[in-house]
Amino acid sequence: MISCSLCDADQETLLWTDSRCRVVLVNEPEYSGYCRVIWHEHIKEMTYLAESDRAHLMQIVFRVEQILREIMHPEKINLASLGNQVPHIHWHIIPRFSDDAHFPDPVWAARKRDSKSDGLERAVLTQRLRQSIADMLN
Amino acid sequence: MISCSLCDADQETLLWTDSRCRVVLVNEPEYSGYCRVIWHEHIKEMTYLAESDRAHLMQIVFRVEQILREIMHPEKINLASLGNQVPHIHWHIIPRFSDDAHFPDPVWAARKRDSKSDGLERAVLTQRLRQSIADMLN
Repeated sequence: MISCSLCDADQETLLWTDSRCRVVLVNEPEYSGYCRVIWHEHIKEMTYLAESDRAHLMQIVFRVEQILREIMHPEKINLASLGNQVPHIHWHIIPRFSDDAHFPDPVWAARKRDSKSDGLERAVLTQRLRQSIADMLN
Repeated sequence: MISCSLCDADQETLLWTDSRCRVVLVNEPEYSGYCRVIWHEHIKEMTYLAESDRAHLMQIVFRVEQILREIMHPEKINLASLGNQVPHIHWHIIPRFSDDAHFPDPVWAARKRDSKSDGLERAVLTQRLRQSIADMLN
């Protein structure tokens, strides 16, 4: 067995889960509000999923996008499913701001500047996101 | 009016189009098979789209992923909707290979190596992709 950091996850800040996937708040101080939607099962590509599962997952991704827009008012939302290092389906949902460390480049590019804190304390943001996702999805 | 390179597109290698979106083959010699799915209308975020439009667009994205997997057998498919520089909805669909210029990092990270050509001549690939997408979507 090869270990997988998303199958063997610990210390995640869980925001929401159902039987198929979960939403976590990434611990990335420069990117407040950076969420991941992680499929529970170890599956590599989106097109390996059944169509109904794929639609379910994307619905969660877009609900999280909408909640992040409403709470954080970012300049742009970035969505990505890469998985080159961890080939287990997960979506990055990243609120971007014009003064963040990489804007307007992707967060994976070279840094452009030191970033400012957005002022929303992590525990407060976690609670607001949990509540908003629960209200929208449950 | 601010000009938008996706509204005013020219010299695209068009693979497929319908009334709502188009699929193009990106001209990126190191990334053979790199496609974009571009929404025709100038809209910034996925969650600004009507749900039916969003579902349509994602269906096209996943069909292109499937075709690229079948034709190119990549190590991984990368999907991303960023739009920080061009806030007009477009999806990157990038077949990744273990010997490409950035693997396993995202294509926007620092280069790791010179990449090898994959051997599929661009005109041949364009024709195969056009045919496969037409067979699947029309």
